[in-house]
Amino acid sequence: MCLSSLILSCCFLLPHAGAQQRTGEIWPQVHADRRISFQLKAPQARNVLLEASFLSQAQAMKKDAEGTWSFTSEPLAPEIYDYSFAVDGLKIADPLNPFVKVWRRASRSMVLVPGEPPMFFEEQNVPHGTVQIHRYHSKSLNTTRGLYVYTPPGYETATDRKYPVLYLLHGSGDTEDAWTIVGRANVIADNALAAGRAQPMIVAMPYGHTPGVRSDAGRSAQHQAFAADLLGDVIPLVEKNYRVHDDAENRAITGLSMGGGQALRIGLAHSKRFAWIAAFSSGVPSEEQVNVLLAKPDVLNEDLKLLWVGCGRQDFLFERNKQLLAALKAKGVRHTPRITEGSHNWRVWRRYLNEVLPLLFQSDK
Amino acid sequence: MCLSSLILSCCFLLPHAGAQQRTGEIWPQVHADRRISFQLKAPQARNVLLEASFLSQAQAMKKDAEGTWSFTSEPLAPEIYDYSFAVDGLKIADPLNPFVKVWRRASRSMVLVPGEPPMFFEEQNVPHGTVQIHRYHSKSLNTTRGLYVYTPPGYETATDRKYPVLYLLHGSGDTEDAWTIVGRANVIADNALAAGRAQPMIVAMPYGHTPGVRSDAGRSAQHQAFAADLLGDVIPLVEKNYRVHDDAENRAITGLSMGGGQALRIGLAHSKRFAWIAAFSSGVPSEEQVNVLLAKPDVLNEDLKLLWVGCGRQDFLFERNKQLLAALKAKGVRHTPRITEGSHNWRVWRRYLNEVLPLLFQSDK
Repeated sequence: MCLSSLILSCCFLLPHAGAQQRTGEIWPQVHADRRISFQLKAPQARNVLLEASFLSQAQAMKKDAEGTWSFTSEPLAPEIYDYSFAVDGLKIADPLNPFVKVWRRASRSMVLVPGEPPMFFEEQNVPHGTVQIHRYHSKSLNTTRGLYVYTPPGYETATDRKYPVLYLLHGSGDTEDAWTIVGRANVIADNALAAGRAQPMIVAMPYGHTPGVRSDAGRSAQHQAFAADLLGDVIPLVEKNYRVHDDAENRAITGLSMGGGQALRIGLAHSKRFAWIAAFSSGVPSEEQVNVLLAKPDVLNEDLKLLWVGCGRQDFLFERNKQLLAALKAKGVRHTPRITEGSHNWRVWRRYLNEVLPLLFQSDK
Repeated sequence: MCLSSLILSCCFLLPHAGAQQRTGEIWPQVHADRRISFQLKAPQARNVLLEASFLSQAQAMKKDAEGTWSFTSEPLAPEIYDYSFAVDGLKIADPLNPFVKVWRRASRSMVLVPGEPPMFFEEQNVPHGTVQIHRYHSKSLNTTRGLYVYTPPGYETATDRKYPVLYLLHGSGDTEDAWTIVGRANVIADNALAAGRAQPMIVAMPYGHTPGVRSDAGRSAQHQAFAADLLGDVIPLVEKNYRVHDDAENRAITGLSMGGGQALRIGLAHSKRFAWIAAFSSGVPSEEQVNVLLAKPDVLNEDLKLLWVGCGRQDFLFERNKQLLAALKAKGVRHTPRITEGSHNWRVWRRYLNEVLPLLFQSDK
């Protein structure tokens, strides 16, 4: 690999806006030594700060004679970082970086620092699966919603083969594209399959929010509404349109944060339908709800092939997850606890997915 | 429809980040009377302008006591508009609007003003097709590239049916996602199919740029490289992975601007492979190249079912398109000229696609 090719633009990693060879000016620039150079042209600004997930505090950028502000980092560990600029206090995404995380809070930009060898979340020259964007009318919610579905490499031509399905749920700050665009679930799955680490599977990534006011009072209704959409619309859509096995041993449910709570509530309440459950940094149901969900430990132990509960020590949900783990232990429900370093962010969730994919749909479990 | 539901957020139209029910604050707001309210919180800014495709010149926004700048438009025609803010001269997309057009120039935001009845580019409660995101290794270009493929409603379950394919090419400022995210080709096709106006078809939307320096000198090499990828990688991928007819009468090629030039060059040079060609506001090949492409009018008239050439009078490429139409007439090549109002923008291209889809793959042509 020549050195010049190591000036990478982050955007070549975008699954929906590929293209290593963009012809415009793309920032930031990632150098061969894994430093990142950021740049923003804002001649009239008085103060520009860089806020980034690799910085413990915002860093002042330096203005040159042309009014271009710049900052170059130290060499960084291979990772996907996010950042924004604060221009006289206004937080903005990088106007010249198409790799953007949108939704809820103000948009932030992302940048990937590659590893050598490549990290598990980097697109490599291996067979690639396909990500399908569905729009469907939810009868349960009487609205049109989105659904992303990953099919593994070779799915289109293996017309006599059926696959297991992982339902992969996002967090409260996300939409149905987050596991693809930010979480890179498709890339992680491609790489795990190419390495022979995981079973070929379909990954269905529904939209997790439901209509109506979000509040603590409404949370249970929200949950019921999502469960109705998942069980009554999403799963039937997947099982109608894809060649999939439709038994519990071929159905997994996993999610992060809000989606982790959904995976636990739906999975544990429907253990005859989902034999594999994993919850990442999850919004654990209340103690009362957990008691209901764990009321029949023998049934859960009989039905479940995996109940994986992961959380980082620095996560604001760590205590609640510890309580869940304690309850599982107290009730004698077989499970895999996974306490790691890390806080409530995608760095952790990409790694959890990469750990969990190889555990799913293994016949010897 | 109740009035409150008419406060629409633009983002519910995003094919990949659906969700009518976003829980965060989303701007701009589109009112029932089709005015749009824009807002940006920037207390330290001295001057904020709104630049928008419905404005002939940038408009000053007004600051309130909390430092929030705002502007409300007049009632506007139903349309997808794009806009950006200039904050003390720095052009930015709207940080609270996830409907963003990225790539090449600085990102811009988009907002849809709905019509009643709905416009042809608005998502409606009709059967929806699916958009597949492929990443593939191009043997021709020795690089990994993206490809979007629209399949019509019912494709997944009509397992004994084969479909014609439209190859739909983007402009020089775009990537392979542009026809979906900005052009809304999937929505336009869904609506045309629901109305019985078009034949069910697959729409393959490849990435049109090729590696290497872009320059006038390199343009021919660029074109050859793209043609090699399309003919040698993209079409084989589509014909391997989708149930499609593989004869010329079931293959169309269409594009806008740069992609219009590609459609003309590839389509006319390979009329045994593409019986349907349409060029939107296209970067017309040079006079010398046109002479080569039109050297055998009888062959073209024998092979082609459609040669559609559209351009707006205000388009900077209008003169070149007029020259092409004159050459086609002089050579006696049968074609459909389509001179319209409009300049070089997506407002025109969405309408051209909506006009052309019903003309394709009609057996009586």
